[in-house]
This record gives sequence, C-alpha cells and structure tokens, in this order.
Amino acid sequence: MSFLAGLFPAAAAKAMSGVNAHVFPPDFSLALESGATVNNLTVAYETYGTLNADKSNVILVCHGLTGDQFAAGEHPITGKPGWWTRLIGPGLSIDTDRYFVICPNVLGGCMGGTGPASVNADTKEVWGMSFPVVTIADMVKAQAALLDALGIDKILCVIGGSMGGMQVLQWVKSYRERVISAVPIATSWRHSAQNIAFHEIGRQAVMADPDWRGGEYYKYGVKPVKGLSVARMTAHVTYMSEAALHRKFGRKLQDISDLPYNFDVNFQVESYLRRQGSTFTERFDANCYLYITRALDYFDLTEGANALADVFDGVKTKFCIISFTSDWLFPTSESRHIVRALNATAANVSFVEIDSDKGHDAFLLDEPEMFRIINGFIDAVAREYGI
Amino acid sequence: MSFLAGLFPAAAAKAMSGVNAHVFPPDFSLALESGATVNNLTVAYETYGTLNADKSNVILVCHGLTGDQFAAGEHPITGKPGWWTRLIGPGLSIDTDRYFVICPNVLGGCMGGTGPASVNADTKEVWGMSFPVVTIADMVKAQAALLDALGIDKILCVIGGSMGGMQVLQWVKSYRERVISAVPIATSWRHSAQNIAFHEIGRQAVMADPDWRGGEYYKYGVKPVKGLSVARMTAHVTYMSEAALHRKFGRKLQDISDLPYNFDVNFQVESYLRRQGSTFTERFDANCYLYITRALDYFDLTEGANALADVFDGVKTKFCIISFTSDWLFPTSESRHIVRALNATAANVSFVEIDSDKGHDAFLLDEPEMFRIINGFIDAVAREYGI
Repeated sequence: MSFLAGLFPAAAAKAMSGVNAHVFPPDFSLALESGATVNNLTVAYETYGTLNADKSNVILVCHGLTGDQFAAGEHPITGKPGWWTRLIGPGLSIDTDRYFVICPNVLGGCMGGTGPASVNADTKEVWGMSFPVVTIADMVKAQAALLDALGIDKILCVIGGSMGGMQVLQWVKSYRERVISAVPIATSWRHSAQNIAFHEIGRQAVMADPDWRGGEYYKYGVKPVKGLSVARMTAHVTYMSEAALHRKFGRKLQDISDLPYNFDVNFQVESYLRRQGSTFTERFDANCYLYITRALDYFDLTEGANALADVFDGVKTKFCIISFTSDWLFPTSESRHIVRALNATAANVSFVEIDSDKGHDAFLLDEPEMFRIINGFIDAVAREYGI
Repeated sequence: MSFLAGLFPAAAAKAMSGVNAHVFPPDFSLALESGATVNNLTVAYETYGTLNADKSNVILVCHGLTGDQFAAGEHPITGKPGWWTRLIGPGLSIDTDRYFVICPNVLGGCMGGTGPASVNADTKEVWGMSFPVVTIADMVKAQAALLDALGIDKILCVIGGSMGGMQVLQWVKSYRERVISAVPIATSWRHSAQNIAFHEIGRQAVMADPDWRGGEYYKYGVKPVKGLSVARMTAHVTYMSEAALHRKFGRKLQDISDLPYNFDVNFQVESYLRRQGSTFTERFDANCYLYITRALDYFDLTEGANALADVFDGVKTKFCIISFTSDWLFPTSESRHIVRALNATAANVSFVEIDSDKGHDAFLLDEPEMFRIINGFIDAVAREYGI
C-alpha cells in the first residue's frame, strides 16, 4: 500500500505494508446510506486469540474517532501499546485465551482500509475529498461484510467506547439477530449540538490550513499539519475533565520558575496540548479526520423511527451500558436515555455509571471498575452460551 | 487614528476616529508587571450619566475578553447595541440618571487605546507582537491612571463579568481603599488549566494562519481571518451550555430537509458558529486576541500571597458575587472559593448562584434575576453613602 508512504514516515509506511486486511472482490459493492457505492473495498483488521470450531467465541471491538484496529499489541506506527491493551489479552477482561477478538479499522479510516487516504482503483489516485461521505451505519455494514467473508455469523459481544459505542448501538439496530450482547461505553444514541459544534471547529481548522489544498495535499507532498493539530488540541480538551487537567497540570509552568511574559509555551498544559496536536498529525490523515467526524455528526439512531424505544422494540441482545461521572462530552444523561428506551421495551440491560475524574478519556484509561464490569458481563454471557 | 483603517472597513474606521480617549502626556510611564513600561499611553473609554459634584457616584464597568468600552448605546463598528444595554441606562439596574458610569477599553485592546494594534510612537509603526505582554493587573493600573486623570478617587462600585470580573477582583487587590463595592460575575480568582488550554488552542489557530505573518499582517494589508475565526468559534462554544445549544439548534438542519452527505454547512449549529467566527474578525484584532487571552491565562489573584484569604484580609469593600448554574467555563465552585476566602476574613459578601441554562454567556443576556440583584446591591450601597 504505497500510498501510505505519502502520509507517514518511510518506516511507518513499511510497517503498514504488512497490515492485515480483507480485500473484497473488485465487483463487491457496498451500498452507502448516501446512495453512493464503494467498490474494491478493503477492510483492515486485527485479531487476537483463536476462533473456536463453531465460531461462537467472537468479540467485535469497535474503535473511536482517532483509534484504529491496533487495540492490543504494539501499534506499528507509534510503537506504543494498542489503545485497549489493558482490556484485551490473556487473562484480561477480554480474555484472548477464551475469545476470538476482531477489531476492524472503520470504513473511512486511514490504517490500510478503504477511505479518503486510500487509492481509488478507477482513477489510480488517492480518493481525498472525492471519497463518498460515510456514516456509522456504513461502517457497521462494512464490518458485517468482513464477518461474512470470515464465515462468522453471530457475535458473542460487540463492544466499544465513544464512536465505538455508536457502532455497537448501530450493530443492534442493523443486525440485531447477529448480536448476542452489546457493551456501549461513554457514548450516545445521537451526536449532540455541542459535539457537532466542536467537530465543526476541527474541520474548519483543517480546511483553513493552506496545506490542506482543498483536500488534494497528497499530490503536493504536504500535509495540513497545523490545522489538524489545532483540531486535535480542541478535541483533546473535550476528552478530559477540568479536574483531570487541574490534577495533571494546574497552573504549573513548563521548565521555568517565573512567568516569561511571552507567547512561547509557558504552562505545562500548553506544552502537553501542543505535543498532543503534533504527534497526532504523524499518525492520522487529515481528510479521514474530516470524514469520520462527519460520520459522528450524522449519527442519530432514531432516524427513521418515532422514538429510541421503537428501535429496540423486541430486541433479544443483552446490554451492559457504562458511563463516567466526569465525561461532559458524552454525559451519563445520554446513557440513561438509552437505558430508559431499553427498559421501555423490557430489554435485558444493566447500567453502571463509574465514578471517575478522568473525563471522556476514562474508557481508554486504567479504570479497574470498568475492567471488572466488562469481565463479569462477558463471562456471564459466555457461560450462558456454553463457552 | 488612521491605523484603524487597516483593521476595519472604512466606515467603521471613520466611526472610530471620534472615539473618546484620554491621551496621557508623552512622558507618562506605565510600569508593567513584566518590568516593561508603556509610554504615550492612551486609554479609550465611554461614559454614561453625569458625574456629581463630589465625584462620589462613579460606577466602573469592566468588559470581558472580546468586549469593549461600548457597554451601552450603539457600537460604532457593528451598529448593534452595546453589550450591557440591558443593564446600563436611565432607570435600569445601573441607573444612568443616578450614577456616572465609566467603561474603559482594556490596555491591550483594539478600540482606540494603547495595544498591539495601536501605533508605537517611537517607531511610527503598529506595535504588533512587539507590544509588551500585559496582565489583568496592568489593565487595572491603566484604569486607575485614567480615574486619576479624571480626578476621581473613590469608586462606588466596580462591576464586570468573566475577564471583567477578574479586573473587579484585581481592583480590590491593587486599590482596596478606592473601591467601596465590587460585583464580580461569572469569574474566578485564577484562570484554570482547562481555560488556559482553550485559549492556547485559539492562539495556535491564529498563529497557524499564514496571513498572521508573525503578527506583522498590518504591513501586508491582510488579516488572519480564518485562524481568528476558528479561535472565536472554539471560545464561543465554551461560552454556551450544551442545554442552550440543544434548545437553540439541536440537530436541526440548515435550509435543507435531508442530510446532504457533504462538508458544507449541514446543521444550523454549524452555520451559527461560522457566522460567529466571521463577524468577530470584522470587529476584533487578532494580535489583541493573543494578548488579552494571555492576560487571562496569567491571572492568579493569589500570586505573591499564601492564600486567597490573605489577599482579602481586612478588606472593607462590600462584595456581591454572582455565578450561573450552567456556566462550565467559570463554574460556581470557583465563585464559592472566593466567597469562602472572603468569609474567612469576615468581609461583607453576598453570593447568588442564578439558575440559568445559558452557560457562561448568561451574564451578557436577559437574566432578570441578575438585573434585580445588581440593582438592589448597588442601590443599598449608594443609599449607605448618601447618593
């Protein structure tokens, strides 16, 4: 996948060339919600653990906006541990000695699958902004096609946080008969006005960068690094709580003892944010950021239904819903709304609000209570199904 | 003030040429906290009402980050009502039939006073980023110099919201003997890590815009419109509550009935934000935005003191502190911290948290309870002082 060489340092591109991916036949056509279709679909994915004989031990892990398929193990570009290594592994909550874990990169992502940064087979050029707008439902549809291709029908558990949680909910809406249990974490049934607003700021920052070049930057050997960095900084603040920022940084100065009265990095929080912004641009494609934020904004599970309860009417899937007290991006009230809708249809649902000061990011961090809950829930479901 | 012609449309520059300002003698020197000095100081200000014979009916109004001296009446650039026309006027809470209201543009501002967008008398060029970094204490010092020049010693009440509230608190710290009463609204005794983070994002957005040109854009006839717009959009979201955004916009589409699957304005909240961003760039200077956000970040009333209570020890000023339930930028907890410090020194303080879903912006909006409280507090103080 040589196009990645333009996006990432040479070493990273080399690492990416060995990415696991299912390449669908050229005539396979994925019909999108917009009415457009995607042919020559590739879905990149990672797996952990072993698929059992009757293919009944599958756990589908859905990643968030800036996550990817490298949930466990080492990330080939950053060299850092995967985003859920605390959760996925032998003897961990998502026990790879017992379950077969699949984590696909979302449709529209930039880690080896089909998206704005991949090559359009018809034109032999990177899609860029000519890639069709995709939705969470489209992402889930591509994942379902991947499972079909792997001969997997039922999913023991589909689990994910944030945008991953939206995919979990969408899985139940689109393919309820395939989903035995579902764990949506720190998420919502629709993207709120405030969250759309923060995403629009990020998109405007990217598109304001002259190196974005109308999305054609691949051709010019440049990347909208500054714009994407501002977008990431904005998003990152929304992922943390004021309490976490205060605990980590407060008003502490960066490598200086007195206020320097200038516009360099003065405070530690500024240094941290700038670093978050710049490291992000090394591993993520700007156009993909535009597309995936758009997919989040478009997400509304009640679309085409009168009410959320109607979406879940008669559903057999078992739910475990988790939120965090200090998450102001996807506050507990949104999880409660889902719980109420499920209760209204007499669905099997448990709900836990975890006390944490780590904000939205808590679902990616060391939260032992979350680990215990997920472990207990999946274990109970697995026992019930004889695994 | 012809330099303004480069910043604003011709008609606006014409309007600004008649701005009220006190021009200090060239040898007047304002010593800043940084150790730098500002000579040739000009403080632009507006007044409303009539100063009484013994100059005892003065109310000093301090504006917020993007506010200015046009608190009442019509704004000469936007043509819109001043930012506190609901509060300042004949028979209103700040009754101009009774009080003499002074509202200065802050040092570092861009409405006719000395700041990054004004001309450096030594070089005959616009200061730009060669202007010294100023603090809230410096702003207050310039205001005190203005009052001295006007022959005004005591202030019946100093009042302001957000950064205006910081100036109110700083007035008490710097010149407690001059301040009879103080009304800090929706503010804090120090800028939090989260707020520093949001400001840093705004500054990075401005400085990432190639039209910023290292702050020298005045020379090139350009302005970093896109970067400043992103900065304003970010800030604007923090000024509102999720409830207010939901009430105003929710997920409503802009002039369309179905999702268009593109990156144009789709949602009303996007349209609103983009408009907020672009109109702001017509009335505000980008470098001033950098300087004033820096002043906010530097604000910490406890600097040079062991604790906040020490700052207020023995103070005679009467306080009325106001916060809003849905203000997540300057939450009630920060006002309570100030109240506790004042209580610890047995100061005269009343505190009200107003139930509002309008977020931080509530202090600028139609909040009848706030109007009543301010009216009652100032009236009581005025009666006590025989006005």
